[in-house]
This record gives sequence, C-alpha cells and structure tokens, in this order.
Amino acid sequence: MATKRRQTLRVAMVGHAFMGRAHANAMRQAGRFFELPFDVELAVVVGRDLARAAAAAAKLGFAEGSRDLDAVLARDDIDLVDVATPNDSHAPVAMAALRAGKHVLCEKPLALSSQEAVAMAKLARASGRRVGLWHNYRRCPAASLAERIVRRGDIGRVRHVRATYLQDWLSSADVEASWRTESKRCGSGAHGDLNAHLIDMTRFLTGLEFVEVSAIAATFTKSRPTGTGKRRRVDVDDALAFLTRFDNGALGTFEASRVAPGRKNHNRIEINGETGTVVWNLERMNELELFRFEGDEDTRGFRTIMCMDESHPYAANWWPDGHLLGYEHTFVNTFAEFVKSLRGRGRFRPDFDDGVAVQRVLDAASKSARSRRWTKVG
Amino acid sequence: MATKRRQTLRVAMVGHAFMGRAHANAMRQAGRFFELPFDVELAVVVGRDLARAAAAAAKLGFAEGSRDLDAVLARDDIDLVDVATPNDSHAPVAMAALRAGKHVLCEKPLALSSQEAVAMAKLARASGRRVGLWHNYRRCPAASLAERIVRRGDIGRVRHVRATYLQDWLSSADVEASWRTESKRCGSGAHGDLNAHLIDMTRFLTGLEFVEVSAIAATFTKSRPTGTGKRRRVDVDDALAFLTRFDNGALGTFEASRVAPGRKNHNRIEINGETGTVVWNLERMNELELFRFEGDEDTRGFRTIMCMDESHPYAANWWPDGHLLGYEHTFVNTFAEFVKSLRGRGRFRPDFDDGVAVQRVLDAASKSARSRRWTKVG
Amino acid sequence: MATKRRQTLRVAMVGHAFMGRAHANAMRQAGRFFELPFDVELAVVVGRDLARAAAAAAKLGFAEGSRDLDAVLARDDIDLVDVATPNDSHAPVAMAALRAGKHVLCEKPLALSSQEAVAMAKLARASGRRVGLWHNYRRCPAASLAERIVRRGDIGRVRHVRATYLQDWLSSADVEASWRTESKRCGSGAHGDLNAHLIDMTRFLTGLEFVEVSAIAATFTKSRPTGTGKRRRVDVDDALAFLTRFDNGALGTFEASRVAPGRKNHNRIEINGETGTVVWNLERMNELELFRFEGDEDTRGFRTIMCMDESHPYAANWWPDGHLLGYEHTFVNTFAEFVKSLRGRGRFRPDFDDGVAVQRVLDAASKSARSRRWTKVG
Amino acid sequence: MATKRRQTLRVAMVGHAFMGRAHANAMRQAGRFFELPFDVELAVVVGRDLARAAAAAAKLGFAEGSRDLDAVLARDDIDLVDVATPNDSHAPVAMAALRAGKHVLCEKPLALSSQEAVAMAKLARASGRRVGLWHNYRRCPAASLAERIVRRGDIGRVRHVRATYLQDWLSSADVEASWRTESKRCGSGAHGDLNAHLIDMTRFLTGLEFVEVSAIAATFTKSRPTGTGKRRRVDVDDALAFLTRFDNGALGTFEASRVAPGRKNHNRIEINGETGTVVWNLERMNELELFRFEGDEDTRGFRTIMCMDESHPYAANWWPDGHLLGYEHTFVNTFAEFVKSLRGRGRFRPDFDDGVAVQRVLDAASKSARSRRWTKVG
Repeated sequence: MATKRRQTLRVAMVGHAFMGRAHANAMRQAGRFFELPFDVELAVVVGRDLARAAAAAAKLGFAEGSRDLDAVLARDDIDLVDVATPNDSHAPVAMAALRAGKHVLCEKPLALSSQEAVAMAKLARASGRRVGLWHNYRRCPAASLAERIVRRGDIGRVRHVRATYLQDWLSSADVEASWRTESKRCGSGAHGDLNAHLIDMTRFLTGLEFVEVSAIAATFTKSRPTGTGKRRRVDVDDALAFLTRFDNGALGTFEASRVAPGRKNHNRIEINGETGTVVWNLERMNELELFRFEGDEDTRGFRTIMCMDESHPYAANWWPDGHLLGYEHTFVNTFAEFVKSLRGRGRFRPDFDDGVAVQRVLDAASKSARSRRWTKVG
Repeated sequence: MATKRRQTLRVAMVGHAFMGRAHANAMRQAGRFFELPFDVELAVVVGRDLARAAAAAAKLGFAEGSRDLDAVLARDDIDLVDVATPNDSHAPVAMAALRAGKHVLCEKPLALSSQEAVAMAKLARASGRRVGLWHNYRRCPAASLAERIVRRGDIGRVRHVRATYLQDWLSSADVEASWRTESKRCGSGAHGDLNAHLIDMTRFLTGLEFVEVSAIAATFTKSRPTGTGKRRRVDVDDALAFLTRFDNGALGTFEASRVAPGRKNHNRIEINGETGTVVWNLERMNELELFRFEGDEDTRGFRTIMCMDESHPYAANWWPDGHLLGYEHTFVNTFAEFVKSLRGRGRFRPDFDDGVAVQRVLDAASKSARSRRWTKVG
Repeated sequence: MATKRRQTLRVAMVGHAFMGRAHANAMRQAGRFFELPFDVELAVVVGRDLARAAAAAAKLGFAEGSRDLDAVLARDDIDLVDVATPNDSHAPVAMAALRAGKHVLCEKPLALSSQEAVAMAKLARASGRRVGLWHNYRRCPAASLAERIVRRGDIGRVRHVRATYLQDWLSSADVEASWRTESKRCGSGAHGDLNAHLIDMTRFLTGLEFVEVSAIAATFTKSRPTGTGKRRRVDVDDALAFLTRFDNGALGTFEASRVAPGRKNHNRIEINGETGTVVWNLERMNELELFRFEGDEDTRGFRTIMCMDESHPYAANWWPDGHLLGYEHTFVNTFAEFVKSLRGRGRFRPDFDDGVAVQRVLDAASKSARSRRWTKVG
Repeated sequence: MATKRRQTLRVAMVGHAFMGRAHANAMRQAGRFFELPFDVELAVVVGRDLARAAAAAAKLGFAEGSRDLDAVLARDDIDLVDVATPNDSHAPVAMAALRAGKHVLCEKPLALSSQEAVAMAKLARASGRRVGLWHNYRRCPAASLAERIVRRGDIGRVRHVRATYLQDWLSSADVEASWRTESKRCGSGAHGDLNAHLIDMTRFLTGLEFVEVSAIAATFTKSRPTGTGKRRRVDVDDALAFLTRFDNGALGTFEASRVAPGRKNHNRIEINGETGTVVWNLERMNELELFRFEGDEDTRGFRTIMCMDESHPYAANWWPDGHLLGYEHTFVNTFAEFVKSLRGRGRFRPDFDDGVAVQRVLDAASKSARSRRWTKVG
C-alpha cells in the first residue's frame, strides 16, 4: 500500500502547568480522532526549570524538556510554538516565536493590554505565519451548534446578550494570594480571566461588535494570606460587571465573579433574538437550550438539545450518539482545526485580531470601571 | 336589564377535612372563573359532630352544618351531594344519595373493592343522575394538554407508560399510625391512595386499558406508635410496584411509595410513543415535557412547555399568560366541568364506570402481589 | 356559644380589570384560609362605566357597582379602598381615599414619579391610616423563605444581586399598541412594570438600599399597529438594564425586558453572599434554590427546596405538605397580612415609603438611561 | 536521577470497533493522568482482517496489527489481553487468553449465558491471573461518589432501587437490522445490553443481591430492513422491564428500552434509603442528586452535586475544580485502577464473579419474561 507519507508538524510548548497539560492532551489526541494533514510530533517542553520541564515532557508525551527558549526557537525543525504560560509572557514569547518564523498558538488572553495585543496582531499579519488563540469554548459542540443556529437565522435578529461567568473559589477571605490576585502578573482579576471568555464567545456566536460599555468592579477581600503568616494586598477585582450596546443596537449585560457561592464554571450566555432564544452554559456543556416561536402554539417551550448526535458539530469525531464529552475535548477540537488550517488558505479563528477585539472590550470596561463613564470600545 | 335568572344548584357536602376544604373551595371559586349554567349554592356540610360541622360550614362558606345525612338527603332543595369522607364510606354515602335522587360527586377511590365499585356504577346508571369522581389531576392544565397531544397523534402509537407516585412522609418509623395505615379504613396503603391516581391518569392520557399485571408490595415499618405509648401493627403496604401489559401491547411500569425521601408529590407519568414522548409531573404541575422526532435533526430535544398561555386548557379561565396555577385549581376546573355537564348530554368523565376500571386494576395488582402471579384485570 | 362577634371590614375596590380580579379573589379567599381579625365585606366596585362596574361586582362577589368614586369615598361604612387602576390614577385615587379617612391598599407601582410617590407617602403618614402596596411577590412562600434565610445569616454578607424580569409578549412587531406602550399612561415600559418588582424584592430580601445606578434602555419596535390600520409610535422602553452599587458595597445587575422569547414571567433573583447563594424565580415559584458552604465537602450543591411543607411561610394556611400554590395565592397572603396589620401596631410592609424607595430607584435608572451617567438614588 | 525503571505492561487488544477505540484511548491516557506501577505499551491489535487491524493499530496507537490470535497469545511478551469483540466471542477469547497465562480485561456482558459466565469465572480463579470487566460506569466520578455516600450510611438502609436505561435509536421501524437485533450474535436486545449496566451498577452502589425477578418483554418492530431490500425478523427484545426483591427486602424496578423517544443514554438509578435518596443519571454524568432528612427542616431539598471538585473520586487526576469529564474518562479511570491492581493483592472489581452475578440476574429475567413467573436468581 503506497500511501504518501504525511508531513510531520513538530511542536514546542512553552509552559507546562494546567494549560500546558490541556494543550498537550489536545496535541496527543487530535490525530486519534480527526483526520489531520500532518503527523503531530511533540518535540519539546520549555520551562524555567530544566528538571521540571523534563519531567513534564515525560509525563505529557514530549521528547524532551528545555529551559532555553531561544535555542528552541532557533531550531529549524520546530514548526509550531504553543504558548501556555501566565498572561504576562504571552506577548514576548509569541512575538519571539513569530520572529523566528514559527506558527503560534497562544493561550488567552492574548495580552495584558490592547496596545500589546495590537503589536502582536500586526506582527502576526506581517509574518505570514498562522496564529491562533486558545478560546477553546468556541469548539464545545453545543457552542458551535449555537453559532450555527444563530447564523442560520433560527432566532432572528439579536436583541439581548446576557452573559455571566461565575465561580466561587475566592469567596472565603482565607483563600491565599496567588499570581491571579496580583495585577502585575495577570492584568486584572475575574474580568480578564472570565469576561475574556464571554466577550470572545459573544463575538463568535452573534458576529456582533461591542460599541461602548459602562462598568462597575469590586474587590470584596482587600488582602489575602500569603502562606507565610503575612497578608498581601489584593489589587485585582473579585467581580466586574458591565453594560454594553452592540453595533446592531442590541443590549448586553456581562458579569464575571469569583465570589458567587455554588457556581463553579458558570460560563453562561443567553441570546434573545426577535424570534427565539439560545442558552449555552459550560456547566452543562453537552446541552443547548433553544426556544423558537414556531409550530403549534400549545407545544412551544425551551428545548434541551443533547449535543452529541452525529448531526452536531464535532460529535462524529468522537463516540457514537449519546455519549458525553468533557472539558478537554474543546481543546482537542481546537487543535485539530488549527492543524487543518495550516493546509488551508482561510483564516483560523480566533486569531490575534480576534484577540485584539476582545482586549479592546476588556480595556474599555476596565477604564469605564475607573472613570465611571460610558466608554467607547477601540 | 332583564337577564333570565339562572337556576341554582344546591350542594350538600359530606365530610369536611382536607378533601372537604378542597371541594368547598372549588365550589366557591368555579362561578368566579367559569361561565356556569347554574348558580352554585353551598347549602349544608354534613359531619359526625354537629358543632364541628357547623364551624366547618362557616369557615368554608356553607349555609349550615348538619349531622343528619338522612335528613339532608330527604331535602327537596338539595341537587348535588359531594362525598368527601374517608374511603370506607364512599359507597354507602354515594349510594344513599343516588337513591335519594341526587347527583353525586365522589372523592377517589370510588370504593374499597371492585365489587363495591360495580354496585355503585350500576346504581348510577340506573339512577339517571349525573355522577363524577374527583380524579382532579385530569384537569391540571398540563395533564389536559398531554391528553390533547397524545390523542391528536403527536407522539404516535403508545409503547411505554412509566408511572411513579412517590412520597416520603412514612419514611421514618416514628411517624404515628393513622387511618391511612389501617387496611380496614383505607383498603390499602400507597397502592390504593397513589396508584389509583396513576391508573386513572394513564387511562385518561392514553385511552388504553390495562390487560394484566404482576405486582410486588412491601411494608418496611411493621408497626407504628399510636400516640398513647403503644404501637399498632401496620397492615397496609408502604409501597407497591407492578408491571402491566396494555390492550395495544404497550408495556407499563407503575410504582407507588410513601417512603421515597425527598419526593413530596412525585406523581409522574412518562409516555413513550413511536414518534415522541410526553412527561407530566405533579411536582412541576405547570410544565409539560415533550419530545418529538421532527424538524431539524440538530435541534431536537425535550422541550419544557409552560402550560399557562391562552392556547392551553383552562388557562384562559384564570390569569393572563404566564401566571401559575396550583393544586386547588385542578378541583375548581373539575367542578366547573361537572356543573357544565349537568346541562349537557355527554358523559362526565371520570364517572363511576371509570372508577370501576381503576378499581379493577388496583384489585388485580393487590391480588397479584399476594399470589405472586400475573393476574388478569377485570 | 357566645363568641364575640368580629368586626366587619368593608372594602371598595377601584378598577376591575386583571388586577381587580386578583385583588377581589384575595379578598374573598383570605378569610377562608387565614384567621382574620375582621370579617371582610366586599362592598362596592368603582369603575368608569356603571354597567360594567355592576357586572364586575356580580362576577367578583361585591355587593354593587358604582361609577361615582366621590360618593363611595363619602360613605361612612367603607373602611378600606383598594386601588386597582392603571398607573396614572394611583396617586389621585389613593390620596382622595386617604383624605376621606380610608385605609388604602394600592397596586404597584405606587406612582408615576418619585415626586408623586413622596407626596402620597407624606399624606399617608399624616393620615394615620394604614397603607399598603400590592408587591404581592414578597408573599410568595419561596420568596418569604428566601428572606428568612438571608436575614438569619445563612448566606452571609450579600455581595451580588443578579435580577432579571424577562417576558416575551412584545417580541413581535405585530403586537398592537396599548396603554402599556404609551408613556403618558404607564410612565415607562418594561422598566416601571418589571424592574419595580425586582427592586422591591431586592430591598425585601436583602434589606439593602440602592446607592447609585448606571442604565441603558432600548426600544426595538419603534411603532405598533393600533388595530385600526394605523401605527402609533412607541415611546416606552422594550427593555432597560442597569448596574447598581448597594449601601454595603454589594454589586447588582438588573434587567427588565418584554422581548426575550420563551421567557413568560422570568422574575428571577440570585443573591450571592459570602457563604452561600439563594435563587428565586417566579416561573418556578414553589421552589427555592440554595447553596451553602457547609457539611461534607463532597456533598455540597445547589438544593431545590419545594416550599410547601409546614415549616415554610404561609404553607400551613393552605394545603397539606407537598401541594403547590399559584400566582393568586401571593395576593391572598398579602391581603391577609394587611388585614391582620389593621389590628396590630407594627408597620405593614411594603407601605408607601417602600413605594417611594422603589420609585426613586426607577427614576434614577430612567434618568441615567437618558443622561448616560452614573446617577445617585434619592 | 537514578529512578528505578518501571516495568512495562504489554497489551494485546482483540477487536477494534467502538469498544476497541474506547479501550485503546483508556490505555493511551491512563499513564498521563494516573501514577501507574507499569509503563503501558500498546503492542498489537487483533482483528479478522489484517489490513483493517493494521490500520486500526496505526490509528489507535498500537505497534502492529494481526489476524492471528493464537500467535499473539503465544507471545511471551504480551501481559494483558483486552477483549473488545462482540458478545458471542467474549468467552472463547477470554478463556484462551487465560489459558495462555495472560491477564484479561473483558468487555461486558461477560458472556451470553450464566453457564458460560460460570465457566469463565472458574477458569479465572484457577488461573491466578487478574481479570476485570469493563463495567466502566462504576468509575464515573458521580457514580463512585454515590457508592461512597450509600456505603457510609448517608441515606440509611436501602428500600427502593428504581433503574431505567432508555435509548431511542430503534424507535423507527425503518432502522436497519444489525447484530444487535439478532439473538444469535448478542444474546438479547435491550435487556442484555442495557439492563446489564443497571444490574452491575445496582450491585456496586448498594452491595445488595437480587433474589428474584418478574419480567415482561416486548418487541414492537417484528422485522427490519437489511439494507438489501429484504427484511429480517427481529428475535430480540426492544424493551424488557422487571420487578425484583433484594436480599435485604428492598424492592426494585428495572427497565431497559431502545424505543423511548428523546432518551439517548438515560441510564438512571434512583436509590431511596430510610433517610435519604441518591439519583445518578449518565445523561448528566457530572452531577449527582442527593436528598437527606437533615439540618433545618425549611431548607431541605434535592441538591445537585457537581462531581468535579478535588473531594470527588478521580477528579484530582484530571482537571482543576469545576471542569467536566466525559464518557471516555470512565474507561480511563477503569483501566488505571486495573493496572494498579496488578501490583496489589486485593480483588479488582468488577471481576468475572461479578460478571456471573450480573448474568444470573439477566438470565432469570429472560426466563421470567418467557415463563411469566417469579423466578429465583442463580
């Protein structure tokens, strides 16, 4: 059997904490469940400590570990650099990789500010390399289905977006400080972490752009223990909510919080159109709720669609009808699409321009929360 | 304004405990929300104790109390006798009322046995009077809607009925004995009380008849305190489950229990047809769940219909769209239909023949639980 | 039996449309289910048209109809005036009644503006009469339970209020114009109608006061058919959302809309405290959701409390455990409490001062939506 | 770093359809998420066709394909044989592997009959090899949690088991015949396929044994198209329901159906104990419902536990708190436990003795459905 040998795509991953584990899993699994134009080879994990990078490489299925990013970027055989580091190094790592001629996949948020994001997007366009952002929830089958439903007009012109991303892990004042409670490391708190998802998802689902925002933020716990008996001031928000008007005149309410007891990953978006409503919620990520004014009046109601039949996005790549997917599959689906895009000519979405768009909304909301004024986006 | 004066319907109610309160409320309210062919006059409450009957009459809106049923039945001006007593007196009271030429509405279950029920139905037919049974849940709007949906063929030929009526008030062995734990007074336990509802509702929703049953029963708490420091043996079931085959070949599973912690009034019926499913549950009595194989494959799912828009049964009699009804409304709807039927020629359902049909299934299941054999109904 | 005869409370009701029907039902039913210090006598219905007022009186159980409010107010035997008219006549009717020395129960919203509301509250205080507002949802058992839970500290200090009142009846541009789409008659659209409920309920549940708001409004359908072939301009909002900060530093998001397909009476409030969360939703008004950080870590979760056991507010007045209540019961509970308050010395809540507080928040939000600025309440 | 090199566990997998894909995934992933005592090496896939076996090996990550089971079993370097073939070859393959001295993991159901199962279990015990059955749902975190809850006594003595496994893929008479509708290949229909899961799960969750059963079965579609224009008779059940009594006196109702529209993988078990209830449902496999009589009476209710915090079984092996798992993870968890058991001395559960126990209940129910009698298990 004279099969033409597929090319190999060699990947270097920078960072190997939670996100690195999720990315690595996606890289290992994509070729098992999707037909890809390349064999994916997990070449090297880059970290700040060699021993830990090597251990991560072994655990995650990479050939080796390294602490020398420059040396890795200088290697001819590396095709793709995956950025899985904390937020403050997204820009330097991604830009170095682009300059070294690599394709780049970057964890969200793209950057700590719009300015930084714009520079990255500009460089990406100039580089001719393929870039992508890990807004993985776009490839949750139920979310992809929601996008299909909205785009084909099933709910009509959009009038309301109602988006909340609620967690509860900072509810107690006893939870310790971390890089996530320090603005220097993460930019902002719940806002940058959680609203970033809501904003990207809204743009994806509706195709609308945010025009202006009015925001309010709060930090309920002013300082947190450090683990060494001291306390460190918290300089990021626990919660940030904002109102928005979209370019078609629709209204939006957005809210991110890490102090909503009982909410674990309540990343929920409700979209009301003129003729119907869809609701997606990460906490029940295999389901989509849909209402439409249609059919017999006496049988209308919200339906719960279990998004795992072959008619649903990505479902056919996985298991037979009726078998659930989990969190990690959104990464696998994303990676598979990205690898496929390397052969195609179209744009992979979300790319750095999408990252810029998200960042601009985040920045406008941050600014509005400080200035207490309606603030234009962009 | 020379409106022709409507006739008056005078009602005597026998019994004034929980069911009496619900019936009386229905009688007071029906004319406020329905156009009735008669003015309903609450004439007399009959009880075993005159003072208590008089107090009940005052509280419930009747003109007077009485302890003399015979005298009340002898009154020419009484048109309708409502039977709201414990199970063991349904037959004697209802039959006396029929013999006295009264219309009769009787609380369920019709009787303590099929034989008794048959005698009542026979007398009812001979009497020419209108009779009805208070299987009030038929007139829950969501249940009436379910019947409409099944009857118009929306879910196709019925294949499965899955019915459970679960409560939890006898879970603890510390709950005291009462007439409901004494077979002499109530016939059976969860079975007669709860399965009676499931059986009537299934006949109503599907139009099917039960052919044969195989049952199992259990009494988990063998004796209960009496309140006087003693214990009394429990000789009724805590739970009874049965399998059945219907006359069209469909399968049914039925289960009644008073020892299912967390279930308060979990009177739930799921019907699977060839092309769809409906689910009704008294604990969410304003909703109906419906699934159909129809429309786009990728948007199929169970829908939750909120049964309170003007397209829904009885909804227009009550409040504007979107306002919930409660338990008592099922009685009001039932009473209104019964009063309307007094002017019409059709049969009011459920009547005593329906009561016989229910009783035959109950009896067959009781017998099967004892004999441990499949038992024919009827 | 020498029972001391209870006094009689004679009621005149002004208005007899939807709200009049609900109020009248409450007046008829309260004494059947509550021990009241007065016999309630439904004396007269006042309307603009005598024949219709008389027909309403007959239907609703009042002794007579009238079109002469002044004459009714001049009657010595009338104790209580119930205001069930459209919004623009609340102030004149209620104030005339107070001046005539009557107790007053007034449909919400109290007034069309804060100024009007303040004048009413001032007069009420000066009059020495008892006044109340029909914010009936406070007496939904699940809402009363939520208040009990929050007040006894079960969820800790409140940090977030997330409130939405969504309906869908104006989604289609084909729905005709009415007094509800005309600012002169109703003040505002979804805002005054629906946010009024959310604001009152939030004050009730949390005891917090609104400090400042930032709002956005939209009217998606600019004109509507009149039924005569013409179209009338819509000058009220279809939707209004606002952010708020409370006096304890908590954040709130509020949103009212009549164009959210599938939402019928989605009056939902989520309150996140430091140690727990409660969620109340009118569409499932017999249930309350509660989360607490407590007990074994591995069994924590949102619980759904069915609010109809004898431990729950008002449940014991109605039916045995496990039987649902509906929309109208919130009015009956309210009326019963009001009548009881006539004998007591405490304040009936909500009263006109509560109405003022609600109106001030409504006004601030309306103003903010126009000015596009954060606006202080009060 | 002189780490002692771990031993390698070499696996041969027989069969490579749906179940083979799920098993292979588990073998690839287990070592990435669990600390295992062996390195797992995917050595060979055995199939009936060499080219297809080789392609499967490549796709699934095995070193090679083979069509010669005997040769594979003769290899010294194969440690574990995984049986992923249709039901009728479980016994011959597993027994040949045991005779060749291999450990064996076998897809469920263990066999086509009790006799066959008993022979397998006997051989397994004699062999001294480790055997396991892929009843993967036991290792769904929510199911493992349910078992923990029941075993630690949180719901008290079990009184009711209410189990349904409902699917809808055979609802239409147009669905084609397959090995799953042919008794020779699969033993029975919905019964063997779906009730097997319910029975194993019930034994796992409760520790109870089934004493006797009364069953009813139905085949609604008597013949199905073959794809070649002909129709083949269906000789397996579409649905089978049975009643049971457990060894502690508890009652059970069990029902499997492939003709329940809208139900995809409705594998749901409700267990009522004396003091509480748990409900597990594969369609919401990341959640567990729990009710307990405990704490304040007014806050009791069913709670929905999201089973993905570190306090929950297996959760710590996967992602941080609040991130969902899917179907395939139940296989990974199972495989990891099996591999760990190879080093330990305890029994791996479920093993072939568990398989025998399940098969005995299945057989008794099949027999009861034919004989129409209560039938002892075993």
